[in-house]
Amino acid sequence: MDAMEFFQQSAGSWRSQRTTHHLAFKRSEVGESQIQVDALAADDPEIIALCEFHQIDASLAIGGCSVRWGGSMGWDQEGENHEGNTVFALVPDTDNPRQGRLLRDRGYAEIVPVVGQYHMDDDGGLVLITEYDTMSSIERFWFASPDLRMRCSTVKRFGGFNTASFCTESRVGADSLSHPEVNQGDAIVSDVTPTQAQEVLQARQDTSPQYFSLLGW
Amino acid sequence: MDAMEFFQQSAGSWRSQRTTHHLAFKRSEVGESQIQVDALAADDPEIIALCEFHQIDASLAIGGCSVRWGGSMGWDQEGENHEGNTVFALVPDTDNPRQGRLLRDRGYAEIVPVVGQYHMDDDGGLVLITEYDTMSSIERFWFASPDLRMRCSTVKRFGGFNTASFCTESRVGADSLSHPEVNQGDAIVSDVTPTQAQEVLQARQDTSPQYFSLLGW
Repeated sequence: MDAMEFFQQSAGSWRSQRTTHHLAFKRSEVGESQIQVDALAADDPEIIALCEFHQIDASLAIGGCSVRWGGSMGWDQEGENHEGNTVFALVPDTDNPRQGRLLRDRGYAEIVPVVGQYHMDDDGGLVLITEYDTMSSIERFWFASPDLRMRCSTVKRFGGFNTASFCTESRVGADSLSHPEVNQGDAIVSDVTPTQAQEVLQARQDTSPQYFSLLGW
Repeated sequence: MDAMEFFQQSAGSWRSQRTTHHLAFKRSEVGESQIQVDALAADDPEIIALCEFHQIDASLAIGGCSVRWGGSMGWDQEGENHEGNTVFALVPDTDNPRQGRLLRDRGYAEIVPVVGQYHMDDDGGLVLITEYDTMSSIERFWFASPDLRMRCSTVKRFGGFNTASFCTESRVGADSLSHPEVNQGDAIVSDVTPTQAQEVLQARQDTSPQYFSLLGW
């Protein structure tokens, strides 16, 4: 799979379970989001405009995607939200089609234009490395199946690891695709009460002892 | 890095933040554990005994490790624990030293002897694939730095994805290595109250807007 095929396989509606491990504080924060991805061809006006914005020859782009998302995390403060939309373009290196630059239309945490480095690994994972002024991130995305996409990332600030995050993104079925609107209110925090956990506890009992890893721990 | 070097770099005491996404229930469970890893040479009596138990020529093993762990998850029931100890041996394929069999001394969820398939990927990750009677798992471990080890895994039961898990494992400093005992009571669940989250919220404000991913969502 190349990066454009990865984006094409990502097209559709997704529901994301997400966890952030705040490393210095040894705390975990959980949340949810909904994502709508549309693949864009190399000649899409949005791809061409994005290349021009980054002053990169648009004929080098192989395509990209347009994404809308909305969600919430467990410790959000009033007025804080996690919603937005953006466009990405893939510009492979001329000497290696499996790696290159990922252009983004606007920064998320910085005002400067954002360009990340991507490469596809041998296990079909898409790896993104992004350097900002005071921080950097490494992210890896992969498909466990065509309908289950996963993501791990670490963020460094001022040279030290700050957070590690994990997302499990499940494709939303065809019935739901007729209502792909993303509203922040749709995504509710999944902190679980003892009552809510009962159904999971039952499932655990059905398959006990609980399996976590070949390694045991 | 080969698999034995991965185990050698894993030697020491680790504190693990862990999250399990229960996929069918769209719920997340968090927990913590402590891990003590000791690397074992190929001629260690425990490695030889483990190979003999699996009826594998012990001269094929390149070494392994001994692990003790203790921990807890958020929805544990009374009497449920996550502690134990076990031994692993690496038996590379004769035609490819970067892949082979990982032997384990006893099953975790099954009674039959456990043998997983491992391979090292090009990004230095250790991938384990294990097949049981009614389930299978794929796990990937990698070092974000020498003192920060990470792990992602998925578990299938009866052919369908059941859980996806993520661990962030931080090396415990030299001061703590003199007290490497692993006690279940040491590992407390990190479900966070609003009060506990205040310090993290403060840290967020210091670096707002929150950064999650180059992709934005």
